[in-house]
Amino acid sequence: MKYTHYNHELNIKHLGQEVYLKGWVQKSRNLGGLIFVDLRDRFGITQLMVKPENTSYEKALKLRSEFVIEVKGVVIERESKNLGIPTGEIEIEVSDLEILSAAETPPMAVTNESDALEETRLKYRYLDLRRPVMQNFLIQRHKITQAIRSVLVKEGFYELETPILGKSTPEGARDFLVPSRLYAGHFYALPQSPQIYKQLFMVAGFEKYFQIARCFRDEDLRSDRQLEFTQVDIEASFIDEEDIQRVIENIMVHTFKEVLDVDVKAPFEKMSFRHAMDFYGTDKPDMRYDLLIKDFSDLFNQIDIPLFNDKKYIKGLIMPNGAGLTRKQIDKLADLVKKNHGDALVFIKKQNNEYSGSINKFMSQKDYELLGLNNEDILFLVPGQDDNCLNALGALRVELAVLFELTNPNDYKFVWITDWPLLEYDEDEKRYYAKHHPFTQPKDVDVLLNNPKEAMAKAYDIVLNGYEIGGGSLRIYSQDVQQLMFKTLGLTDEDVKHRFGFFVDALKYGTPPHGGLALGLDRIVMLMTHTSNIKDVVAFPKTQSAKDQMMQAPSDVDEVQLEELHLKIRGE
Amino acid sequence: MKYTHYNHELNIKHLGQEVYLKGWVQKSRNLGGLIFVDLRDRFGITQLMVKPENTSYEKALKLRSEFVIEVKGVVIERESKNLGIPTGEIEIEVSDLEILSAAETPPMAVTNESDALEETRLKYRYLDLRRPVMQNFLIQRHKITQAIRSVLVKEGFYELETPILGKSTPEGARDFLVPSRLYAGHFYALPQSPQIYKQLFMVAGFEKYFQIARCFRDEDLRSDRQLEFTQVDIEASFIDEEDIQRVIENIMVHTFKEVLDVDVKAPFEKMSFRHAMDFYGTDKPDMRYDLLIKDFSDLFNQIDIPLFNDKKYIKGLIMPNGAGLTRKQIDKLADLVKKNHGDALVFIKKQNNEYSGSINKFMSQKDYELLGLNNEDILFLVPGQDDNCLNALGALRVELAVLFELTNPNDYKFVWITDWPLLEYDEDEKRYYAKHHPFTQPKDVDVLLNNPKEAMAKAYDIVLNGYEIGGGSLRIYSQDVQQLMFKTLGLTDEDVKHRFGFFVDALKYGTPPHGGLALGLDRIVMLMTHTSNIKDVVAFPKTQSAKDQMMQAPSDVDEVQLEELHLKIRGE
Repeated sequence: MKYTHYNHELNIKHLGQEVYLKGWVQKSRNLGGLIFVDLRDRFGITQLMVKPENTSYEKALKLRSEFVIEVKGVVIERESKNLGIPTGEIEIEVSDLEILSAAETPPMAVTNESDALEETRLKYRYLDLRRPVMQNFLIQRHKITQAIRSVLVKEGFYELETPILGKSTPEGARDFLVPSRLYAGHFYALPQSPQIYKQLFMVAGFEKYFQIARCFRDEDLRSDRQLEFTQVDIEASFIDEEDIQRVIENIMVHTFKEVLDVDVKAPFEKMSFRHAMDFYGTDKPDMRYDLLIKDFSDLFNQIDIPLFNDKKYIKGLIMPNGAGLTRKQIDKLADLVKKNHGDALVFIKKQNNEYSGSINKFMSQKDYELLGLNNEDILFLVPGQDDNCLNALGALRVELAVLFELTNPNDYKFVWITDWPLLEYDEDEKRYYAKHHPFTQPKDVDVLLNNPKEAMAKAYDIVLNGYEIGGGSLRIYSQDVQQLMFKTLGLTDEDVKHRFGFFVDALKYGTPPHGGLALGLDRIVMLMTHTSNIKDVVAFPKTQSAKDQMMQAPSDVDEVQLEELHLKIRGE
Repeated sequence: MKYTHYNHELNIKHLGQEVYLKGWVQKSRNLGGLIFVDLRDRFGITQLMVKPENTSYEKALKLRSEFVIEVKGVVIERESKNLGIPTGEIEIEVSDLEILSAAETPPMAVTNESDALEETRLKYRYLDLRRPVMQNFLIQRHKITQAIRSVLVKEGFYELETPILGKSTPEGARDFLVPSRLYAGHFYALPQSPQIYKQLFMVAGFEKYFQIARCFRDEDLRSDRQLEFTQVDIEASFIDEEDIQRVIENIMVHTFKEVLDVDVKAPFEKMSFRHAMDFYGTDKPDMRYDLLIKDFSDLFNQIDIPLFNDKKYIKGLIMPNGAGLTRKQIDKLADLVKKNHGDALVFIKKQNNEYSGSINKFMSQKDYELLGLNNEDILFLVPGQDDNCLNALGALRVELAVLFELTNPNDYKFVWITDWPLLEYDEDEKRYYAKHHPFTQPKDVDVLLNNPKEAMAKAYDIVLNGYEIGGGSLRIYSQDVQQLMFKTLGLTDEDVKHRFGFFVDALKYGTPPHGGLALGLDRIVMLMTHTSNIKDVVAFPKTQSAKDQMMQAPSDVDEVQLEELHLKIRGE
């Protein structure tokens, strides 16, 4: 079908040209006999004008929003210009007009601003996605994907595909299962990540691999989580931490420049996990503002405050010029602290050079003066036995940044979090879990063997503006160390053989040192498009209750399908 | 980790340079005290030499095949040169050598030639893939994928992702199902293709979409089929057949040039489905050779041959210089004809200007002379009532091309097959099936309404060297026509509503004319790498019995997993 221009292209330079355009009717209006139509395509809008004497006038009279049309006409100068859009100085005097598709009145308006319910938007996703603001999310996603891939290809990584129908290895999140028709009672599993496959690519000598990989977790959904998600999965051989970090930095610098025209500075700052916890109260610190956590334990050891008795730590943070917070606001912050397992929230204000606050009656002027407050500051304190007080202060820090507008969304601050503990001890189950995953290389095998609690990992996360956007590690490439790791995690020899036998086997025929990282593509697109709703950056998302509203999936299936799969529904 | 070169890079120009290399020991040999090592990486091989006086000599003595090492050394000229490889004029005199990983003797040799059983190769896939010939399949796949994508991106297509967890619409092949944990007795389905999603992208106004999409069919496997496969899925709005064909031609021209340095001429030849059937006996003709089917019905109508009585058609093909075929070879061809539902195979030879053959006693010299045979030709005839005789001759044609070596694998001949019937009538089930799929646009809606058997489709397949590598069509974009199509296929209003309700709904809010095509990526890689086994071009394939030999999937799962999914195994 013939068309000469998209709807963002024509301007005053094209005056007098004959053009063919197509698209959707954004709106149509009759002004004193002249019909004006805003014609929309994926790039923009052009104004059409149809005169009463034109043979297409009858057709033009029928136009309603969302009709699909094609027109032929001549570019003329507009009388009343709209300098807000690229085509705003011209319009098309239409000579021919064809209606390609009529449209019923849509159940939601196809405009950037929408007051449609989320349920309606998801049911009519194909209309929701017609809104330019929504199209833009997916177009940016496309651009981001291309930019990331181009760096990897240029650096010699091969894009290789791994199976979606794999094996269930129940560890960590829940697998989605796929019943086998040929083997009664047997199941494939959808991959939670291509972790094992990508390491096998390294065993197989491909040296540099990546994949824009779909991953699946049958977990309860949140606003930033879907049943299926996409990660940029990367692995390389003969590399160390610095090498892989440099690749990721190149990706980020190029992608932010290409897509947002933003200059990101590399190399990124590095921070140990411990430092991040101690000063930011989180393993994913937002580096756009300071507001560091301080340790006041020694100071308050000297003062007898019942609330602080028996507490190991008294930590806090000073919000400069925060003394104006109302009691109501502070109460809300106290709730936040408790929700994040903080024991309590204590505050001290310095206003007009007078101190006040929730522990006023225990504090002397001299005590106050040791705190280091400037006039108009507020200090928040959280007492605690362990890292919980840091977690609570971390949440408080983020909330204060919102309240005091400390962040600019167009400011992008990356940080590497390094020096992770290898294991986490679960007090209830009396066993260790891998902090990242069981293939992460320990910094020192002897420590893993003799004092697993202290074992550190060759792992690194990349954090952007307070969100983890990727995590990686060097991997274990020795069969013995891998066995030790599984054993430390409480797997019996039988377990290991049954679940990971082939993988442990694979390590013994000459495995190169290797490592990698996986970037969360959905999260990166969210941050780069400034949305906090993952559904905005996924074309056909599931609801929070794991449903496809448009297609009505999951759905029941024919009994004969279940028979073929050797399955029965329980309770039927 | 430091390395200065890959193992295909060093040559006589680098003499005297100090270099760092890494890789796998291809082989190691001790010649008069000197140790020679062939060091392999993904690009090639470099020869190392370790002298007895070197401090690394003890380590070098330990080297066995598939050890992973890194070395430092100096490039020197080789005494006995191997001009068969790029590095064959030099070797590295090693000063330092580190063993990064030892290797047990692998269960199969890591060499291009392998006599390992397929079972062994699949079980130790990570070793099989280490063989350069196998690595090359996946590296070519990577390059082909990048080349195809680059054209689509350049032409303004957006790469958009569609869900893997979708809805079961049992039509055509069998779906893989995924039980839902939240909704007892409900299932997601893995997509057989993103057909509906990509049309919804057009409804949503994205105008140009593509995806390198994983698709799933729970069908019995053949050597060219896997449970999951990859297609390059393409859709565009405001286009006609020529537009989409031009995009595909651009893809092919660019990809063959980029990956194989082969010049492909576009536009490709076009041929109607009917013509292909009549002259090539197939809808996917190999255009690298002629050998056209001819209709001898009129001629044999004049001759009384019992075998031909009551047969509607007598069709055949002449193999020039084929008269030397032995009786045994001809018997094999007759078997092939019968396997392809041909009624019988008759042959007539002209040798030393004498005619002979299986119907000699019915034929006069005058009859023979009407056949148009040259000396040393052989004519094969298949009588039949319908297209079966064409199918049989089509299979015969392909086999003759093999026997007489009529094809060159480095010759690439594309052809578009157009003008397809819209429907196929199933005599047993007394109903129509869509020849492509139920979204294909009819050429004439009135014919579909009044005489569905004769309805033609706006569909086109692309065929390369006798293989269908892609199929596409313009789509129905009117709700009424879509309803008519479903009705013609025997779906009740209830069926349509339940299965496709949301989709029929979507067509009524302003749907642009659109169409597209899906390319079979696995098949394209197979043809471009000259393998007939799909497993060669898939990193981790399933066996013909749908198993992952390496991981042992599908596997049994914990009872608790089944309980969570509300499932029971039948018969337990």
